[in-house]
Amino acid sequence: MEQHDAVEVILAKRDRGELSDSQIDWVIDAYTRGVVAEEQMSALAMAILLNGMNMREIERWTTAMIASGERMDFSDLSRPTSDKHSTGGVGDKITLPLAPLVAACGVAVPQLSGRGLGHTGGTLDKLESIPGWRAALSNEEMLAQLESVGAVICAAGSGLAPADKKLYALRDVTGTVEAIPLIASSIMSKKIAEGTGSLVLDVKVGVGAFMKDLGRAQELARTMVELGTAAGVHTVALLTDMDTPLGLTAGNALEVRESVEVLAGGGPADVVELTVALAREMLAGAGVTDVDPAEVLATGAAMDTWNAMIRAQGGDPAADLPVSRETHVVTAPTSGVLTRLDAMAVGMAAWRLGAGRATPGAAVQAGAGVEWHARPGDSVVSGQPLLTLHTDEPERFERALESLEGGWEIGTSYHPRPLVLERVAED
Amino acid sequence: MEQHDAVEVILAKRDRGELSDSQIDWVIDAYTRGVVAEEQMSALAMAILLNGMNMREIERWTTAMIASGERMDFSDLSRPTSDKHSTGGVGDKITLPLAPLVAACGVAVPQLSGRGLGHTGGTLDKLESIPGWRAALSNEEMLAQLESVGAVICAAGSGLAPADKKLYALRDVTGTVEAIPLIASSIMSKKIAEGTGSLVLDVKVGVGAFMKDLGRAQELARTMVELGTAAGVHTVALLTDMDTPLGLTAGNALEVRESVEVLAGGGPADVVELTVALAREMLAGAGVTDVDPAEVLATGAAMDTWNAMIRAQGGDPAADLPVSRETHVVTAPTSGVLTRLDAMAVGMAAWRLGAGRATPGAAVQAGAGVEWHARPGDSVVSGQPLLTLHTDEPERFERALESLEGGWEIGTSYHPRPLVLERVAED
Repeated sequence: MEQHDAVEVILAKRDRGELSDSQIDWVIDAYTRGVVAEEQMSALAMAILLNGMNMREIERWTTAMIASGERMDFSDLSRPTSDKHSTGGVGDKITLPLAPLVAACGVAVPQLSGRGLGHTGGTLDKLESIPGWRAALSNEEMLAQLESVGAVICAAGSGLAPADKKLYALRDVTGTVEAIPLIASSIMSKKIAEGTGSLVLDVKVGVGAFMKDLGRAQELARTMVELGTAAGVHTVALLTDMDTPLGLTAGNALEVRESVEVLAGGGPADVVELTVALAREMLAGAGVTDVDPAEVLATGAAMDTWNAMIRAQGGDPAADLPVSRETHVVTAPTSGVLTRLDAMAVGMAAWRLGAGRATPGAAVQAGAGVEWHARPGDSVVSGQPLLTLHTDEPERFERALESLEGGWEIGTSYHPRPLVLERVAED
Repeated sequence: MEQHDAVEVILAKRDRGELSDSQIDWVIDAYTRGVVAEEQMSALAMAILLNGMNMREIERWTTAMIASGERMDFSDLSRPTSDKHSTGGVGDKITLPLAPLVAACGVAVPQLSGRGLGHTGGTLDKLESIPGWRAALSNEEMLAQLESVGAVICAAGSGLAPADKKLYALRDVTGTVEAIPLIASSIMSKKIAEGTGSLVLDVKVGVGAFMKDLGRAQELARTMVELGTAAGVHTVALLTDMDTPLGLTAGNALEVRESVEVLAGGGPADVVELTVALAREMLAGAGVTDVDPAEVLATGAAMDTWNAMIRAQGGDPAADLPVSRETHVVTAPTSGVLTRLDAMAVGMAAWRLGAGRATPGAAVQAGAGVEWHARPGDSVVSGQPLLTLHTDEPERFERALESLEGGWEIGTSYHPRPLVLERVAED
């Protein structure tokens, strides 16, 4: 590898230049080895955030992060593979019904997930509310489960894209999270290293999402689709609404319960709609076009796969889920139509009730969270329960209620917004 | 002090906002105490470099850096004080004759200096080539010498602006040196904390200077003059040429020898001109208008002060200065007029010969450096010595000669450029 110098690379980007392939390869490798110091990488990250990177640079950056660690390979599986990644939303439990549904349709789903931080929950946190379920699998266990059950949701091992792991932690404390080149390469390096054959990205847009406006969400989606395509992974992105939280719950056990309802053929309409839409994309990406996931959902086959998936990882799908010790009900002060339920307000409230964490590694409450008893567009009657807050620690209610202040409105008319806003794919 | 958060402050500047007084006070104090991490400060420094700071922010930043350490006070001295700061050039030995000259004119000169890094030499490195001379003085020794001799050139103690010391080292490795708000506040925080009553800034402009173009040099000069004035220090800046190196030598002992020639009434005309010009400004700043430094130089009084100043710090002004073990002469390949001598080429050559250092704390050679036997505008004859390279390690000649390639030209006509380009003062 050609030798470079950290300051040389920083200056190139600071002065609005293009980083060469060789500079990118060197800086990622040297950062992974600790030769480029944290304070040097943070200056570079800020320069990238403010001055951008072009597609060639982002692609090389992603490739270099993949090369910093191991790559998994699912090509020996008897089935094609497809994975989904969501940029994170409130009440976004879609992975839970989606993975077993797609597996029940004949496509293996190797879902490496993370834990939550801040107002959006983590898929592993949700599943860990199921008694006995464990997130950590070896690569061999993961492969065996993919072959036998068809779906696995587990913790990403430390071997995939270690450069990204270091950089992600650094960006979090240095105000350099919101750079599209860095977000796109972070997500895609892990997904490409994971070895999935195809990938569907759920890019959330709205007040409760990381991307507040459609333009930036489109840019992120296009960048990730290009990165996946260039790496030989069939990649499609759906831009979906996150002004309103998904379903009727935000919290760990609360969302597992709702997901099981969807697998049982019920559940909130928006969760079903998005699950089926993403399943269609995953199946198409894997080349399976003769199966309708909506029909498979109705047969109960996806529930069987869910049960097998939970059991394979030590969980008891029939066990009672934890419930919080305390609840607090917010009632509707007036009759009318719920015209707005703010995803960020709900996400912050769930977080403050104990469903999420403020620092990596902190514990979360399995039963904590927020339930809402009406969705925007629903009629409500004065005095009816509007929201139920759940926590084990009643002293948390006050700040959660503060988050919810101004977070919902009862009025007269509601203009629905589509859930799937846009589809982004290679031409 | 109001509490803030590092990421909050970084985001404010990243998103082109103004930092509040309270944010600035907090971030400098917290950084000094290690509460704001190096990687956080480097991201902030990059955001400041790319997005700028307005005058209010720069002034507060400077004040906060001063408040991070101790302040010196010369108000009990029997004489007014004046100091000079140069932004760094090649062959810039002006401090050496200037400090004793101004002292001989009745104004005390408390010159806290640094060591060199890169292609520009450091004043302390030059003086340390004098046998016995020591740079480290206690505050009490410094005050006593100012009273008795009138001039002191010594190392800045660790107590002045410790925030700047930390930040300067960080900027050096993170590509964030070239931000005018950070350069100006770094220089001025130390000079204001040092307690001088008036200050003259020699802002170098040209290929061998930190500021390559006049516009940026003007901006830096104006910023520093405003900072000094706001802090109650009478401050004036001269913008001076650094396309061509000053005098006829670049190196440690080589420059001391040349400085002594100036004090003896001789020496290169440009060194004399700039020394006298800066002395006039320092005297005027201190309110002394009835003494002509050119006349005082001619009387030999400045040489007496030099001798006393060197002796007071343990040096022997009569001792032989070190000479390098090896020399290499470059001769003129043709006859004509020397039309260009590139300050950067000469500075790099001197550095590579051992006169400077690449990393803080490294040793320098006292005798190493470059002598030039003609200045731009001088006629040269084919075969005459043009440059003499000095080093203790002859293996250094090759890379030094490489630096000099294309660094000078012999032609027919030379258009002189003034040495003092502009004067910047408060209206």
